[in-house]
Amino acid sequence: MHLKEAGIGEGISEVIVTTQSVSGVPNAAPIGIITATNNNNSKGKDENENNYFVRLYKTSKTLSNVQETNKLAANVTDDAVLFVKAAFEPLTETQFSLFYGFPVLKEANSWVLFDCAFSEKKSESGNFIFQLTPRAVKTNRKEVKAINRGLNAVIEAAIIATRNAITEDERDRAEREKLMALYARIVEKCGGSREKEALKILQEKT
Amino acid sequence: MHLKEAGIGEGISEVIVTTQSVSGVPNAAPIGIITATNNNNSKGKDENENNYFVRLYKTSKTLSNVQETNKLAANVTDDAVLFVKAAFEPLTETQFSLFYGFPVLKEANSWVLFDCAFSEKKSESGNFIFQLTPRAVKTNRKEVKAINRGLNAVIEAAIIATRNAITEDERDRAEREKLMALYARIVEKCGGSREKEALKILQEKT
Repeated sequence: MHLKEAGIGEGISEVIVTTQSVSGVPNAAPIGIITATNNNNSKGKDENENNYFVRLYKTSKTLSNVQETNKLAANVTDDAVLFVKAAFEPLTETQFSLFYGFPVLKEANSWVLFDCAFSEKKSESGNFIFQLTPRAVKTNRKEVKAINRGLNAVIEAAIIATRNAITEDERDRAEREKLMALYARIVEKCGGSREKEALKILQEKT
Repeated sequence: MHLKEAGIGEGISEVIVTTQSVSGVPNAAPIGIITATNNNNSKGKDENENNYFVRLYKTSKTLSNVQETNKLAANVTDDAVLFVKAAFEPLTETQFSLFYGFPVLKEANSWVLFDCAFSEKKSESGNFIFQLTPRAVKTNRKEVKAINRGLNAVIEAAIIATRNAITEDERDRAEREKLMALYARIVEKCGGSREKEALKILQEKT
């Protein structure tokens, strides 16, 4: 399983995770896939030695689907609009395709289908950690793309907006709104049309 | 000239710009290539209608080289270490290759060679705007890569560090240092080994 070639590298890879309920209703949400690199320096060890994890929010549809089916798919994409839409609204049925019978996003650059095994419930947050075992990988599209600060900024803004939606904590809210304004300025200055459209959707949702 | 295929898309593309002096000494610096999309909706118009610009800092080596030779190359890469090194220290000779006789970075995913024409000197900043005309393009490597917030954060941190180095303005310095700390936390949490190495270099330089 060459997950690095499919875009899942070291650290946390921000992807759109697709899942389905036992009754087959698909869902999509932006989530980070955590790659825990084994630091043994012995030769002959390769990326297959990596451990993959995901942290799922306690009341999320993704969590209940994973609890029902023990499967999720990581959809690698750099489309800002897809990220923001997946964060704030259900995607339409036509945006999904099937990969080994499992719902994935048609427009994604690659798909990785994982088996999920419950690992830990975080006592402080109530969130769930699952260990992931890759079962199938498909790369649909490779490309070259320069870093765009607008793309980065809209992802950060979406993360802040999601957090604002799930917390009652007013203490950090002003600080977050200041950051949101900073990221919005970066999107306006550096982003392309997809980043600007994503920011507009984000601002309508928050 | 398919610049989008070489990774130079809408908005501002963060690349490493290589230049050389008349005597042939190469230089590299992280700079944004500005793509000004023409918004005429007439059919038959394509990306060749785009205008490309660059803003060069008034006392930079890149500016004096461009003034001497009227050429620059955009090197598209997502290597955090290369960005940070190019921002703060001269790259070594072995990191350069030649593309149509012009210095480019061996490790870059693509190269675009531009002719540069002086467009404007900004009165408020003293910086120079050049219009760019693409003359040659080469894509060396296509890939799929999930968004990594650590990569984004290290680029933002490098931009802040560069600004701190060129301004005497103390007013915003505290604000910038708060942002630097935020970006460092994101790199530590989400970055891979290249992002963490880049952050370390950045912290040693600032």
